[in-house]
Amino acid sequence: MDIEKANTEATGRMMEARPVVLGMGKALDVIPGMREDLLLHAGPPITWERASGPMRGAITGALIFEGHAKNEAQAQALVESGTVELDPCHHHQSVGPMAGIISPSMSVYILENKTHGNKSFSNLNEGYGKVLRYGAYSQDVLDRLRWMEDVMAPVLGEAIILSEGIDMRALLAESLHMGDEGHNRNKAGSVLFTTKLAPFIATAAPNSGVASEIIRTLGDNALSVLNPVMAACKAMVDAAHGIEGSTIVSVMARNGTDFGIRVSGLGDRWFTAPVDIPQGLYFPGFTAEDSSGDIGDSTITETAGIGGFAMASAPAIVKFVSGTPKDAINATLEMYEICYTEHLYFTMPPLDFRGTPTGIDIRKVVETGITPRVNTGIAHKDAGVGQVGAGLVRPPMEMFEHALLAFAEEYGY
Amino acid sequence: MDIEKANTEATGRMMEARPVVLGMGKALDVIPGMREDLLLHAGPPITWERASGPMRGAITGALIFEGHAKNEAQAQALVESGTVELDPCHHHQSVGPMAGIISPSMSVYILENKTHGNKSFSNLNEGYGKVLRYGAYSQDVLDRLRWMEDVMAPVLGEAIILSEGIDMRALLAESLHMGDEGHNRNKAGSVLFTTKLAPFIATAAPNSGVASEIIRTLGDNALSVLNPVMAACKAMVDAAHGIEGSTIVSVMARNGTDFGIRVSGLGDRWFTAPVDIPQGLYFPGFTAEDSSGDIGDSTITETAGIGGFAMASAPAIVKFVSGTPKDAINATLEMYEICYTEHLYFTMPPLDFRGTPTGIDIRKVVETGITPRVNTGIAHKDAGVGQVGAGLVRPPMEMFEHALLAFAEEYGY
Repeated sequence: MDIEKANTEATGRMMEARPVVLGMGKALDVIPGMREDLLLHAGPPITWERASGPMRGAITGALIFEGHAKNEAQAQALVESGTVELDPCHHHQSVGPMAGIISPSMSVYILENKTHGNKSFSNLNEGYGKVLRYGAYSQDVLDRLRWMEDVMAPVLGEAIILSEGIDMRALLAESLHMGDEGHNRNKAGSVLFTTKLAPFIATAAPNSGVASEIIRTLGDNALSVLNPVMAACKAMVDAAHGIEGSTIVSVMARNGTDFGIRVSGLGDRWFTAPVDIPQGLYFPGFTAEDSSGDIGDSTITETAGIGGFAMASAPAIVKFVSGTPKDAINATLEMYEICYTEHLYFTMPPLDFRGTPTGIDIRKVVETGITPRVNTGIAHKDAGVGQVGAGLVRPPMEMFEHALLAFAEEYGY
Repeated sequence: MDIEKANTEATGRMMEARPVVLGMGKALDVIPGMREDLLLHAGPPITWERASGPMRGAITGALIFEGHAKNEAQAQALVESGTVELDPCHHHQSVGPMAGIISPSMSVYILENKTHGNKSFSNLNEGYGKVLRYGAYSQDVLDRLRWMEDVMAPVLGEAIILSEGIDMRALLAESLHMGDEGHNRNKAGSVLFTTKLAPFIATAAPNSGVASEIIRTLGDNALSVLNPVMAACKAMVDAAHGIEGSTIVSVMARNGTDFGIRVSGLGDRWFTAPVDIPQGLYFPGFTAEDSSGDIGDSTITETAGIGGFAMASAPAIVKFVSGTPKDAINATLEMYEICYTEHLYFTMPPLDFRGTPTGIDIRKVVETGITPRVNTGIAHKDAGVGQVGAGLVRPPMEMFEHALLAFAEEYGY
């Protein structure tokens, strides 16, 4: 068996994937395997008992949103009794930032990889601060979700159809030339996404007031494109998954308690380890003491060759995640050491248009002792609070070591 | 007399100027000194006889647009007879890209410098290629101008009022962190401008179809913000003009035949010299043989500390104007040698958030032998053709030498 050939195929498929946002739909109607009694969440599998504060908060908020619970105790009872089940987004071609909760009646973006035909999904972005994905579920958080669901999603879905689809690989390539790295800095991508859809929102909305409000909501949120970006990355890595003999990482995800990875040549098995606490800059009034463990599916961006791996393209991000522009360049340079190839479409002007480091090779991670570099938001450790900062984190090395051992076992090295 | 003190005051005023787009109006109604029989143009004063091809083409197009002429011969007769007069935009607190023609019935952006109270003006941007400002005046060019004037301008003006104004210094500061340099690369600025105005265009437009068309026109044109950016720079340098004893350049502008500069401490006198031909990349089918001489008021961006001076912020621009990202860094570093200070608000992430080189000092230009670095579009040399490329150019040294001699004479050195 030829590992090089397998990895060339896996990373080739990852880069040639061309995910296009085609529309929106209710999770229950469009996500494979979604059920009325199911909540999807970020990261590898988790139980209520082991769930972090922000994960519990987001589950509670989603069950209130669905009309199944009134408070955290009721939510806990529903989950612990098995009346409501939990499943990773990744088991359903989906991804969600931070807690990553997708409930049956939430609207999701529908993407299709035009090269290989696989689909992917992600929910709507709520903006910054006190939001469900960071574990907040106060009445204003729920009211906002209700407006997004009832007013914004139908118009946005129609606008996407009228636009004939948004090519996310092209949008990301452009935004990497505009100071984004695609994970924590999505300012350019969000205004590009808004600008592309606004003409269609104007005609799809029931009246000009609603059109105006939706365009403003998308345009004022520098993370509005994060969820379709993550879904695009999910479609790319899914295209690279399941290649026999490949040592390329095809999923990295955290649920706030465990970090988990999957490897292209090792099927759907998760390799997990306890998460770290991110290091970074905190909002006024908060410190590292307040931080939850690392959480969210957004590490799918680094898995696909952007985010922390494309830091060199986004020197201005250091004002948000800490460090200097030189650190940003060095972060990208370091990632070349653990990646199999350089991206064909995602290039970085500050590195003379070199392609981003793409395709984390578990062999290289273990050999070099270098773990992937991840940019991330930081959630408060308690349910109900929200975001408290942003920073940097690394996945635990032991996952890569276990995966490499499993690879040796599986393939008889 | 203390030159240092004068230059500190001039550059301080330039940087503390905060120009805000407040609305739109017909040139005749809002530009000081505008008359029915007057056309404003880019650069220092010019006659029909000495005017370049693109300048003659744009004058012809504007006189057809105004209903005064049917062809170039009639336009020439009107101008040569003095029936229609020509005046630099700069004599009327205005600026225009390339030929820079502003005719009485054209709508212009109205800006006010909130710090010092002075106003400035610029026309609407028509997009790329075959457009009036590059000297084209075919029927489709005129139809587009008519649509912009009759449909787009009234809605845009109303949307700007509803937005309560667009702070251009803040927008530029943001776009310099998103890969723009503010002259030839205004991609981020244009989508930011579109995103800020789109919610108000949705409500200001007579119907959703018109709203959609205007938002698309602004959003698809990566130069839509160029004209308000230039007007903002004009308001900044006007605030720095007229400081007794200052050696800071307060205007650089070209009319396709002559380059002209003004100096803060030397009143409204122009120092001129013949323009050069820009060096750069040509559109398919065109070569340097087709190029007009350097043209346009857009060098107001470099005069205010952005454009070619902020190249380090815009490494991706080299795909458009030629060179490498390293050249872009070097261009900015070189400009520090001829500038008086570093900008307080315009910072560049790739240079560790250093302020852009600001305030060209004629003493330093002459001492170092380094002329300012300018990014520019390239017009075809003949009337009626349009844009053929983009590139780099330097103003002639002799203007700075003459200005320095005049300064010595004026102030008795």
